[in-house]
Amino acid sequence: MASSTLSCSASDLIPLLSGGANATAAAAAAEFICGRFETISGKFTDASYAIDNTYLLFSAYLVFAMQLGFAMLCAGSVRAKNTMNIMLTNVIDAAAGGLFYYLFGFAFAFGSPSNGFIGKHFFAMSGFPKASFDYPYFLYQWTFAIAAAGITSGSIAERTQFVAYLIYSSFLTGLVYPIVSHWFWSSDGWASPARAENLLFQSGVIDFAGSGVVHMVGGIAGLWGALIEGPRIGRFENRGKPVTLRGHSATLVVLGTFLLWFGWYGFNPGSFAIINKSYGASPGSSFYGQWSAVGRTAVTTTLAGCTAALTTLFGKRLIDGYWNVTDVCNGLLGGFAAITGGCSVVEPWAAVICGFVAAWVLMGFNKLADKLRYDDPLEAAQLHGGCGAWGIIFTGLFADKTYVSEVFGGDPNRPYGLLMGGGWRLLAAHVVQIVVITGWVSVTMGTLFFVLHKLEMLRIPSEDEVAGMDPTSHGGLAYMYTEEEIRNGIMVREMGRENENV
Amino acid sequence: MASSTLSCSASDLIPLLSGGANATAAAAAAEFICGRFETISGKFTDASYAIDNTYLLFSAYLVFAMQLGFAMLCAGSVRAKNTMNIMLTNVIDAAAGGLFYYLFGFAFAFGSPSNGFIGKHFFAMSGFPKASFDYPYFLYQWTFAIAAAGITSGSIAERTQFVAYLIYSSFLTGLVYPIVSHWFWSSDGWASPARAENLLFQSGVIDFAGSGVVHMVGGIAGLWGALIEGPRIGRFENRGKPVTLRGHSATLVVLGTFLLWFGWYGFNPGSFAIINKSYGASPGSSFYGQWSAVGRTAVTTTLAGCTAALTTLFGKRLIDGYWNVTDVCNGLLGGFAAITGGCSVVEPWAAVICGFVAAWVLMGFNKLADKLRYDDPLEAAQLHGGCGAWGIIFTGLFADKTYVSEVFGGDPNRPYGLLMGGGWRLLAAHVVQIVVITGWVSVTMGTLFFVLHKLEMLRIPSEDEVAGMDPTSHGGLAYMYTEEEIRNGIMVREMGRENENV
Amino acid sequence: MASSTLSCSASDLIPLLSGGANATAAAAAAEFICGRFETISGKFTDASYAIDNTYLLFSAYLVFAMQLGFAMLCAGSVRAKNTMNIMLTNVIDAAAGGLFYYLFGFAFAFGSPSNGFIGKHFFAMSGFPKASFDYPYFLYQWTFAIAAAGITSGSIAERTQFVAYLIYSSFLTGLVYPIVSHWFWSSDGWASPARAENLLFQSGVIDFAGSGVVHMVGGIAGLWGALIEGPRIGRFENRGKPVTLRGHSATLVVLGTFLLWFGWYGFNPGSFAIINKSYGASPGSSFYGQWSAVGRTAVTTTLAGCTAALTTLFGKRLIDGYWNVTDVCNGLLGGFAAITGGCSVVEPWAAVICGFVAAWVLMGFNKLADKLRYDDPLEAAQLHGGCGAWGIIFTGLFADKTYVSEVFGGDPNRPYGLLMGGGWRLLAAHVVQIVVITGWVSVTMGTLFFVLHKLEMLRIPSEDEVAGMDPTSHGGLAYMYTEEEIRNGIMVREMGRENENV
Repeated sequence: MASSTLSCSASDLIPLLSGGANATAAAAAAEFICGRFETISGKFTDASYAIDNTYLLFSAYLVFAMQLGFAMLCAGSVRAKNTMNIMLTNVIDAAAGGLFYYLFGFAFAFGSPSNGFIGKHFFAMSGFPKASFDYPYFLYQWTFAIAAAGITSGSIAERTQFVAYLIYSSFLTGLVYPIVSHWFWSSDGWASPARAENLLFQSGVIDFAGSGVVHMVGGIAGLWGALIEGPRIGRFENRGKPVTLRGHSATLVVLGTFLLWFGWYGFNPGSFAIINKSYGASPGSSFYGQWSAVGRTAVTTTLAGCTAALTTLFGKRLIDGYWNVTDVCNGLLGGFAAITGGCSVVEPWAAVICGFVAAWVLMGFNKLADKLRYDDPLEAAQLHGGCGAWGIIFTGLFADKTYVSEVFGGDPNRPYGLLMGGGWRLLAAHVVQIVVITGWVSVTMGTLFFVLHKLEMLRIPSEDEVAGMDPTSHGGLAYMYTEEEIRNGIMVREMGRENENV
Repeated sequence: MASSTLSCSASDLIPLLSGGANATAAAAAAEFICGRFETISGKFTDASYAIDNTYLLFSAYLVFAMQLGFAMLCAGSVRAKNTMNIMLTNVIDAAAGGLFYYLFGFAFAFGSPSNGFIGKHFFAMSGFPKASFDYPYFLYQWTFAIAAAGITSGSIAERTQFVAYLIYSSFLTGLVYPIVSHWFWSSDGWASPARAENLLFQSGVIDFAGSGVVHMVGGIAGLWGALIEGPRIGRFENRGKPVTLRGHSATLVVLGTFLLWFGWYGFNPGSFAIINKSYGASPGSSFYGQWSAVGRTAVTTTLAGCTAALTTLFGKRLIDGYWNVTDVCNGLLGGFAAITGGCSVVEPWAAVICGFVAAWVLMGFNKLADKLRYDDPLEAAQLHGGCGAWGIIFTGLFADKTYVSEVFGGDPNRPYGLLMGGGWRLLAAHVVQIVVITGWVSVTMGTLFFVLHKLEMLRIPSEDEVAGMDPTSHGGLAYMYTEEEIRNGIMVREMGRENENV
Repeated sequence: MASSTLSCSASDLIPLLSGGANATAAAAAAEFICGRFETISGKFTDASYAIDNTYLLFSAYLVFAMQLGFAMLCAGSVRAKNTMNIMLTNVIDAAAGGLFYYLFGFAFAFGSPSNGFIGKHFFAMSGFPKASFDYPYFLYQWTFAIAAAGITSGSIAERTQFVAYLIYSSFLTGLVYPIVSHWFWSSDGWASPARAENLLFQSGVIDFAGSGVVHMVGGIAGLWGALIEGPRIGRFENRGKPVTLRGHSATLVVLGTFLLWFGWYGFNPGSFAIINKSYGASPGSSFYGQWSAVGRTAVTTTLAGCTAALTTLFGKRLIDGYWNVTDVCNGLLGGFAAITGGCSVVEPWAAVICGFVAAWVLMGFNKLADKLRYDDPLEAAQLHGGCGAWGIIFTGLFADKTYVSEVFGGDPNRPYGLLMGGGWRLLAAHVVQIVVITGWVSVTMGTLFFVLHKLEMLRIPSEDEVAGMDPTSHGGLAYMYTEEEIRNGIMVREMGRENENV
């Protein structure tokens, strides 16, 4: 039907146009022509929804794949006896996160109109869909929420009661994280760069895909959990000398890292939510549009990770004397965590700088952690907290004027990166972000972990820790490679053959 | 060229319009204007093909990734000695399925115009592409066909001759499954909800992405295979007490489960085949269209799986006393298998109910299987057959009036879910679906397995089963972690160094 | 704003049309109408960029996933003691490739306008984006560049110094490969089928997704590396009898193979770069367009791989007497490598032939390699070099006239496949491609490997090879499955309980 409205038969239009001076014919001609323009306009709107939602949905699927990446990375980084435990936390993370984010997480984060602190609409998806967001947007945001909880589970791996995990994970995904994302990502949020007025330092915080909102939140939560629990048994010798408790499978670490890399292409370039938007003055006046910016974001993400990986490769070679693949993987991820906040507003060359520094930030924080006898099996606080914080600063330094204006709109003279000549306002807002996230997560998650600790619900008994959580809480070990029965079987078979030959 | 036709020069149009009363000029003006509208209409058609096929192709790729998921899930769920065997079946499944579905499977399924039972055109893709379907549609349907065979391979794992596998897999992918999909998914099919007339119970069966067509077919086929073969050696003790034969790697189980979850976003939301379609009265009159329905389908899929996973977590904790990750994975997949049929026509809250019940259905059938000494290494019959059947019932109960109308069109008063006030007709059609699929698959696949059994081509010799299929049929074990040569090597090296020092 | 320009109010248009004979009114009417057509034209351009870049970006992400596939395939194919080493090469491949391709690889490959040998613009992405290419195109090309280096790393696995790897990988990704891709894929390239004039044999080389440009380049480079290094210790017994050095995990081999299959859907169908293009005479005049060709390419790719897998299955069963999953995986990949060059211009039935022959080509070259005591742990030279070369010939034989014309345009009478009646010119050009790639890669990479060999920077010391590269160069083994501490832990726990009971 839609397409028939657009059809135009000359034989219909001729009599209308030939009566030019005739008002009735003119009215009919005008209606005829304008009706078609309206149909055309409507079909463009439809096509845009179809294009943008295709782009957003497949981005969401990629971000979801990161949950698999986390599961494999975590599994490979712990000892074999705790594999079932850590993988279960990753599965439940996604599952419980799905229910809680559906029931109220999304509402707290994006329930506009509301105040600057917390949203208050769309509980259990009531009122979906709106013109401003649709089901794919919910799915996309859900994949982000579960990423934050996944980060924290790494910090407290190998020694935390499963019930404690269920509690903190629900609290983080359902409340703590949604509120932070409201502040920076909802147009109502007090620190949002998209507010209509009263922008923080006349700028707001540019945390495009969440160096702060996701990575620092997960990292700081993990920091408090790991601090309150203390290090794993055997992690530091009597005089505090750190002992590496090697993960049981570097293959899983590499598998997980590559999957996270793969999924990050949904995380960063997907955060535009819309791809069909020209940056030219009028439609079609330019080959340059949000599709370019999405692609550029994929490129900056790639370059930051690549540079961080290479820096770590050579850095660790100098420090430790060998070429270390698991450290390179962590360096790579540190580069990604750092570029996440500014990925859409910096030049590719700046992404190289971002990744280079991120590698040293991670190596530095790891050194510091060893000094302070802080034990984080996945280096999650150092990586997501430390490199995430660096990424926030980096954006305040290197955000490009044109890109900020194209991606965030608003006042064309809005602040941008200090080193790019954009003044101190953006950087100041970003320092505020670091302080506020650290404070909020410390107060909420720190308190929660402390209460769980006092109730003796946080850490497992030390004999369970030594035995491993899998045999003591999860019904057995993850692996069974025994060849005994195989050998027996082969013997049986050969005996069978001998009997045949008899 | 196309774009030049759309260009409009005022200097060309002015003389045409200024001669309003002049019939020749009017004709020229009309032709000028209408030619452009036709070009525009054509370009919308092109853009729609491009958008829809992009969406469909990438959905097909996701569904293909489920084959990898199956391979890893199956590998992890069997004992180490049968890993090569089960993985080979998964690879060959896809490969043989590719050839058979190309040669005649697609023709049997979608070869319209034909009768209600079987299609009869497009053998070896002759006549491709048509306006109604294109190459991407073939690819998409192929990924579904191989999924069905993959399900069955799980039920008969660890004890089936490889030749038997080749035979049943070809038969299932090339004939049994295509015919079922013709019944429910081809517009010619006798039970299709898209028939022009003579709808089953004036409704037809709503099996959107295949709780019945794919999951029950695979599950019932597996049920007969496993029943006829009997349980694995050692699975039941003398008095029938079940003994768990643990799979060799929970890591592979989790990897496979997450990959299946990832791929299910192609399976369910991808089944619309078209995304650029408004649900408003006229184009652009609404932000609400098939893109919303695709997103909603992704959400219902997610919520059903998440709820089933959580239900299983707590259910098994109560029953077994520990937190079991592999059971949670199976529960999750059961939720997905159940929601698959109605994913596009139910509300998110209904998906939560679907998943909750699915978890108990799976736990119940597993209990029953143990009682009946039925051994299915992957729980495939219970999961895909049982939860698939529940999903068919669920759709008959909870299908929403508006969604049914939007997604399937036809009579606006067509039947919908019984509990939603839509009468008993849809549910009745769905009961028929369960009966008919069970019957058809039992007659075809049950007979095939029985014949193979009588010809002694089905089960491997018991000594091979004890020894493992990998060393006896596949050239050796899947793993070699021996460190002997490494230790020897280190010794050689140290001796080398000592020599240097000398 | 864009959408408002398209809006059409009848009350505005009526006075303009009713003054038909009035030149001023006619001018206004013409401007009114033409302005809207221009807006419409612009919005189509925008939508096309959005659609095409979405398609291209997600294709790039899929090709990137192949890097993970390579990593897992390689890891599983080597012995456990070299797992960390080979995985590190895959990670660094992507990371170093990212930097080098950014700095000058892309410029050498696509820096037009330039000469036929090497490009010379866009170093460090200066000048991005252009109307002819955008950031997503860079990302897509980068994923191809790192694939080539990944192939080579397989040939020289388990015995190459890590520093040698860093050197050859940078050289290959930054210089050798970009130059080859310039020749065949840049419109300036001397052998490009898209040149404006002076086409090689009036045809140019049709190497659509790189059977030659990627696979032969990687394979020939690997051939020289492996030849110069010589076989691994223990690979051939004293009298030259080959000894299989089994990889340590068939599961990883299957995982990697399926991931490569998944990613190949980005590699081949993605190589169109543009999907929104009708093949009809005018827009919308046909349901048949590049979206069909993209889908057909996915189908030919699938069928070639499937046929090669089945052929290998039965071929190896006849030769070796058992059903071999890892060989089937390699056969599958051989089919893909072969179809890659002609995937877009051949019929599905021809793809079946392509895959069938590819399987025998691979088995033949493997037999030959054993005879010549050539050791390639991944069969990379045989697979990517051998089957890649076959694919180049195959395209010269089977390229379809219509498809060649649709995909490559230019002269409608341009040469196509010899067996399809298209004359010898295309085949001749393809023979030239094989010769030239072999020559160029031999001269550059062969020389490099030889120099490294002479400088004793190529092969590791034999005691390190026996010990394994992981313990000697990478800080330890990839796996730790020891259960000792678990058993101790359980004992501690039981003692704890006994104490409680006292």
